[in-house]
Amino acid sequence: MAARLEALYRVRGEAASIAARAQGIAVEQSVEMPLSAITEPAVLTDVVGEVQDIVDLGEGVFEIRIGLALDTIGLDAGQLLNMLFGNTSLHEDVALHDVVLPATLADGFGGPNHGEAGMRARLGIGEGRALTCSAVKPQGAPVPALAHLAGQFALGGIDWIKDDHGMADQAYGRFAHRMAACAAAVRVAARQTGHPTRYAPSLSGTLETMRRQVRQAREAGLDSAVVAPMVCGVSTFHALVRENPDFIFLAHPSMGGAARIAAPLLIGKLFRLLGADAVIFPSHGGRFGFTRETCTDLATHARADWHALAPAIPVPAGGMTLARVGEILDFYGPRTMVLIGGSLLEARERLADETAAFTRAVATHRFR
Amino acid sequence: MAARLEALYRVRGEAASIAARAQGIAVEQSVEMPLSAITEPAVLTDVVGEVQDIVDLGEGVFEIRIGLALDTIGLDAGQLLNMLFGNTSLHEDVALHDVVLPATLADGFGGPNHGEAGMRARLGIGEGRALTCSAVKPQGAPVPALAHLAGQFALGGIDWIKDDHGMADQAYGRFAHRMAACAAAVRVAARQTGHPTRYAPSLSGTLETMRRQVRQAREAGLDSAVVAPMVCGVSTFHALVRENPDFIFLAHPSMGGAARIAAPLLIGKLFRLLGADAVIFPSHGGRFGFTRETCTDLATHARADWHALAPAIPVPAGGMTLARVGEILDFYGPRTMVLIGGSLLEARERLADETAAFTRAVATHRFR
Repeated sequence: MAARLEALYRVRGEAASIAARAQGIAVEQSVEMPLSAITEPAVLTDVVGEVQDIVDLGEGVFEIRIGLALDTIGLDAGQLLNMLFGNTSLHEDVALHDVVLPATLADGFGGPNHGEAGMRARLGIGEGRALTCSAVKPQGAPVPALAHLAGQFALGGIDWIKDDHGMADQAYGRFAHRMAACAAAVRVAARQTGHPTRYAPSLSGTLETMRRQVRQAREAGLDSAVVAPMVCGVSTFHALVRENPDFIFLAHPSMGGAARIAAPLLIGKLFRLLGADAVIFPSHGGRFGFTRETCTDLATHARADWHALAPAIPVPAGGMTLARVGEILDFYGPRTMVLIGGSLLEARERLADETAAFTRAVATHRFR
Repeated sequence: MAARLEALYRVRGEAASIAARAQGIAVEQSVEMPLSAITEPAVLTDVVGEVQDIVDLGEGVFEIRIGLALDTIGLDAGQLLNMLFGNTSLHEDVALHDVVLPATLADGFGGPNHGEAGMRARLGIGEGRALTCSAVKPQGAPVPALAHLAGQFALGGIDWIKDDHGMADQAYGRFAHRMAACAAAVRVAARQTGHPTRYAPSLSGTLETMRRQVRQAREAGLDSAVVAPMVCGVSTFHALVRENPDFIFLAHPSMGGAARIAAPLLIGKLFRLLGADAVIFPSHGGRFGFTRETCTDLATHARADWHALAPAIPVPAGGMTLARVGEILDFYGPRTMVLIGGSLLEARERLADETAAFTRAVATHRFR
């Protein structure tokens, strides 16, 4: 018997044809050819995808559970995605909803090097309160202005500062220059406050350029970075995580195409599996349309006991405001890093004070 | 005035709120923060996305044209995707429909090194007939069996043989071993037929592993490869293309998520922009749901005059059969590479003959 993972797809269809549709997906996501043309018996038993269950969820939606042979995946993250959803992503009637992984695969990919506990330890923050985060933006602003913002956030006592994910290595703000300036501003401010605020620059480009950026960040005294796995490719993200066990990685959801791969799976589970210590996602009630249920499921996946993988910390973002901190914390609980970006920046010259109000609101929140 | 590219989004919405929605996308895909908090006038004029047009397409769908500053992108392919659709991919009501690029950006990314003309030249095939292609599969079959299939395809006189995109570097068939065996089988058969059949192995993993695979392929006498840009990441794909100007690259649509980025744009234009010589896509009438109109648009984009970029060759695939060759050719015309995979393999021990019938059907087809 071949070892398998289980992929759960949600398919729009009709009862009369759903068994054939399920078998079609099982073939598409494994051998991708007519079974009648397969001459090796071992391929039929050990490699072809196996329809394990079909559940009618009502309203024309079915959940199809397919066993995919682990041997087809190995431990390459791109191949994991390729086998889970590669060709089937081209069918409009199917979404990849969830996966069930055996412990061997979870161990093999390895998950977060640090996760929530390591992030708290690095900042000396106990479990009683949530973490705080903001973003340096807008891209296109002069580097000294961006570094000034980073310093103001740090003076306000924030835990993590990340680059806006649009910041790359543009002519108007080269990575090395911007990163070093922001790192220096945060270092100076952190010495002043005594709080070890972290700054995570955004990495971009190929594995080669991102490796160089990690080296430059380490030389600047940094120990964390933000990466968008669906932009750089999941194999690249996973390689960076495994090569830099001292770094903390925040995963950004850009290009997450959440409508076709369920966001709780992609961001809550798969990004964690590949090693994200913190997973950023657009929370309900902000600029994006994620429901409360989606957000709850995503946060639950990020933190849940799951094989031997370290819990990642969920980072609700995307239009959060200071006025909503209490509500956000009551919704997500203390095992959370709250990210407020643009709305803090509206305070302009009052930024450090506004940031301090944010960190105070999180530190003094009484959970209901 | 900042130089801009134009991104066209199709949005479900209502007339009363569409202007605000358009402005929201323009901000999301550029500075991602409240404009009121931006202190630099140059960011407002030169960096913030610009709503250029809104057209009511009827039935609650609007086309929104947004000018995005070229300076935010530079020449990194991941950043191109990030700025075109990064955060907006998380909104279920929006699809990225098309882009209009200035010549500087097209020149900078560079497009195919060879394209259709270079592929024809390498095989000595004039413009009068379409090219032919098939795929070695299933993954999991023993390497000698796969090499045998490749040899049979070549004996049948096919133009291009590609690895199934599920083939990676699995324990049951290591890339180096499988690739060398298939390359040798094709070389022997090609000497026998006199037709210079090409074999394109599938590359996977990180940029580092894919570079090694290209080196191994070159040592085995190969000069082409198949890559899935949305699995490995577009920056990785683009780097491989630029680093290997002697290689011909076939782009595979795996993880293409075509429902949210229009397939003619992603596969026909963007993969070509990044350097795909041949773009594989699921043709109408096969296993996938692409419409005839989508396929026509995709093929048109791949071949059209577009700045100084070499035309790529469209490769209809995904459930094509010998019986349909005439219809496929009449639909796509001779500037096409026809890919028949699993259906040829159903011929089993008659594979070389079936392949020969396929190549003959393409060679002798009279276009209506």
